[in-house]
Amino acid sequence: MDQSSVSSKLESYLLTHIPLSNALGIKVETANLHLVKIKASFLNNINHKKTVFGGSLHAVATLACWSLLHLNLTEHFSNDFQIVISKSEVDYLAPVSEDFIAECCKPDQENWDRFIKSLERKGKGRINVSARIHQGDRLSVDYSGTFVALLQNNES
Amino acid sequence: MDQSSVSSKLESYLLTHIPLSNALGIKVETANLHLVKIKASFLNNINHKKTVFGGSLHAVATLACWSLLHLNLTEHFSNDFQIVISKSEVDYLAPVSEDFIAECCKPDQENWDRFIKSLERKGKGRINVSARIHQGDRLSVDYSGTFVALLQNNES
Repeated sequence: MDQSSVSSKLESYLLTHIPLSNALGIKVETANLHLVKIKASFLNNINHKKTVFGGSLHAVATLACWSLLHLNLTEHFSNDFQIVISKSEVDYLAPVSEDFIAECCKPDQENWDRFIKSLERKGKGRINVSARIHQGDRLSVDYSGTFVALLQNNES
Repeated sequence: MDQSSVSSKLESYLLTHIPLSNALGIKVETANLHLVKIKASFLNNINHKKTVFGGSLHAVATLACWSLLHLNLTEHFSNDFQIVISKSEVDYLAPVSEDFIAECCKPDQENWDRFIKSLERKGKGRINVSARIHQGDRLSVDYSGTFVALLQNNES
């Protein structure tokens, strides 16, 4: 599947299965095994101070991280897995006052390999995934999520 | 103002100024200086696993904490302040699969007094505020937000 098909398939999945995505006004800009970028509308997510609501920044960052894991685990394990978020931490470093993009890169190879090995051996793995939102050159939001993946039909 | 008027005024404020609140399907159940409870709709916030999307749980908890601060600071300083979220941490302890309520209690008196004194002296204060979401007797979401309040027209 070419890259724009992956992006539009992912976008359609999010909009269909997580209806809040429609209200967030998301668009999947980039979706591959190494990088997911999800754009969201400023106006949909504005707050009383005419900046983006912190809950929206966190939500789009969560979708970017979930999507990166989802694409990679689909590649490894077909559809036989679940992803559950266990914890998130966000630093809101500067306000956002325009359309914004949450960008999630694949974790470093060592952590990734440990995660996949744990999934293969125990049917369960845990990994930290980060996403960032910039406005211009400035880092506005630094997000870290801890996700647990579970293989289905695994007895261990 | 009686308590139901405070709740409906707050609800109207959130729905008007933070449009994502409409998509979250919120309803302010309780709003006073000691406790804010904000309910949200399961169906509005469902995900692909038929549980509540983590981003929605975080967003409603953020609104509850912001609201508690907003009500208290309005009481102290009229409208001459701003509240900015600086950091949030969430533990997702169990899935939520029904309408849910984010419940935020006022921080303990010692921390609260320190926060108000800092605002009065320096025009700026920082405080941690927690919110929790239960399903039945089980704690599902443990949220902690760090908020910074700024007095306006303060030169320091």
